[in-house]
Amino acid sequence: MKISTLTIVGVGLIGGSIGLAAKSRGLAQRVLGVGRHPDSLERAKSLGAIDTCFLDMMLAVGEADLIVFCTPVDQIADQVLAAASACKPGVLLTDAGSTKGQIVQAIDGRVPAGVSFVGSHPLAGSEKRGPEHADANLFQDRLTVITPTSRTDAAALERAKSFWQALGSRVRLMSPEDHDRALALTSHLPHFVACALAGILPAEHQELTASGFRDTTRIAAGDPALWKAIFEHNRVAVLSALRSLTGRLDQFRQALEAGDWSGLDSLLTQAKKVRDALGS
Amino acid sequence: MKISTLTIVGVGLIGGSIGLAAKSRGLAQRVLGVGRHPDSLERAKSLGAIDTCFLDMMLAVGEADLIVFCTPVDQIADQVLAAASACKPGVLLTDAGSTKGQIVQAIDGRVPAGVSFVGSHPLAGSEKRGPEHADANLFQDRLTVITPTSRTDAAALERAKSFWQALGSRVRLMSPEDHDRALALTSHLPHFVACALAGILPAEHQELTASGFRDTTRIAAGDPALWKAIFEHNRVAVLSALRSLTGRLDQFRQALEAGDWSGLDSLLTQAKKVRDALGS
Repeated sequence: MKISTLTIVGVGLIGGSIGLAAKSRGLAQRVLGVGRHPDSLERAKSLGAIDTCFLDMMLAVGEADLIVFCTPVDQIADQVLAAASACKPGVLLTDAGSTKGQIVQAIDGRVPAGVSFVGSHPLAGSEKRGPEHADANLFQDRLTVITPTSRTDAAALERAKSFWQALGSRVRLMSPEDHDRALALTSHLPHFVACALAGILPAEHQELTASGFRDTTRIAAGDPALWKAIFEHNRVAVLSALRSLTGRLDQFRQALEAGDWSGLDSLLTQAKKVRDALGS
Repeated sequence: MKISTLTIVGVGLIGGSIGLAAKSRGLAQRVLGVGRHPDSLERAKSLGAIDTCFLDMMLAVGEADLIVFCTPVDQIADQVLAAASACKPGVLLTDAGSTKGQIVQAIDGRVPAGVSFVGSHPLAGSEKRGPEHADANLFQDRLTVITPTSRTDAAALERAKSFWQALGSRVRLMSPEDHDRALALTSHLPHFVACALAGILPAEHQELTASGFRDTTRIAAGDPALWKAIFEHNRVAVLSALRSLTGRLDQFRQALEAGDWSGLDSLLTQAKKVRDALGS
């Protein structure tokens, strides 16, 4: 795959990493970066993630062959629809949003003929923000979920797969709804829990935390505005995942209250088995 | 501080790290290691954490000037009382157990005259086990909580402080009960939560986890038997910490159900502030 002009809308940790990966792997000849903050765009440029900076998205889409949206999930659909109206024919639009259902539904069937959108979500990132934390190898050996629908053009889907694979990622196809249900459990619920744990720590006990507390709450340092939008988008599935968790916490509580130590041991052993299977 | 003979009972990650730190810092002339598994003791010896291996604890306590118990919390009190009966006068016994109330209560006032026990808990470690994961710098700049009671001998308390400080640790004094209440929140509850999160992950979603899930559940890989004993020892305080957490999770749930996005933002922002204050 070769892209003459790649436009990245939102050049933070994810967008910046896409730029670095695309350039270091010779995937894109030219990378245009769109952002709201000149300072941040200039940092991305000086790091080599993008070649040219744009504060106005509409000026950066006309020549693009592929546009990837790495903005907060509550901005992606509007931006995709606006950009789609000013694209040249044959362009592929895709995104890196953490939720897929609402975004894909808002776009599906509403882009002009000749322009294609394919939703995607690279499972990579961190609680950090900004192009200064970008990494050319962020997607290496990670998974990107691509969420086609019945309306998705087969050739566009193939291009989306090739794009993420060219950045080093493995690819898996899921429906937007299955993606959101799974990610509610594997990403959004952990954020909830990390925030609840961090939130109840009294200031006088900060000194008494060690690596266990720090690991378990690390993602609570993520940007509240980004996460609020994710929860808003994926509310039903997150509430369902939360019910699963509170049900399991209740099993732990009951074992502890009843002094059922073999029951507690079973719960701990089952959890260790799952965690061991994930690797470090 | 100089120790002629230091005996370490339980030469795993913590005990092994004490041995490595004591030897690399010139704190102990001779380190005796007590364990149940000859292979593990030999590994500790070949790594330089101990000089001599003992499968029978009673053979390793008679010449000791300081004995530190790094065994599971449900074994420490019995071992301390057994060792105390065979020690020479002036010896200091201390431990590295994650709970303090039951251990200190079982020992306090029951050691022979001339022998002193001071409870302690270095806030360091990991989900890993065994002397092969020991680290001479494990205690460097970490905190060790020391839990004296009204019966604790002042000179013994000073020696316990000097011992942990000589290993590189800062020291803080707390009552055993205050320690257990605080650690229920900062260590035992996170383990509970990590295990509950890992426990509800369906096998088909393993591939859809990224660094967030992995960080949040990392400690679930800890040894179930060790943690079962910790929960058994600290049952009341853990149940209380669990009530705090479920109360906070309920606030998150209510905000999500009600679509109270500014309320959700406040909860996320408060959690980020706490987590940011802890550092990375």
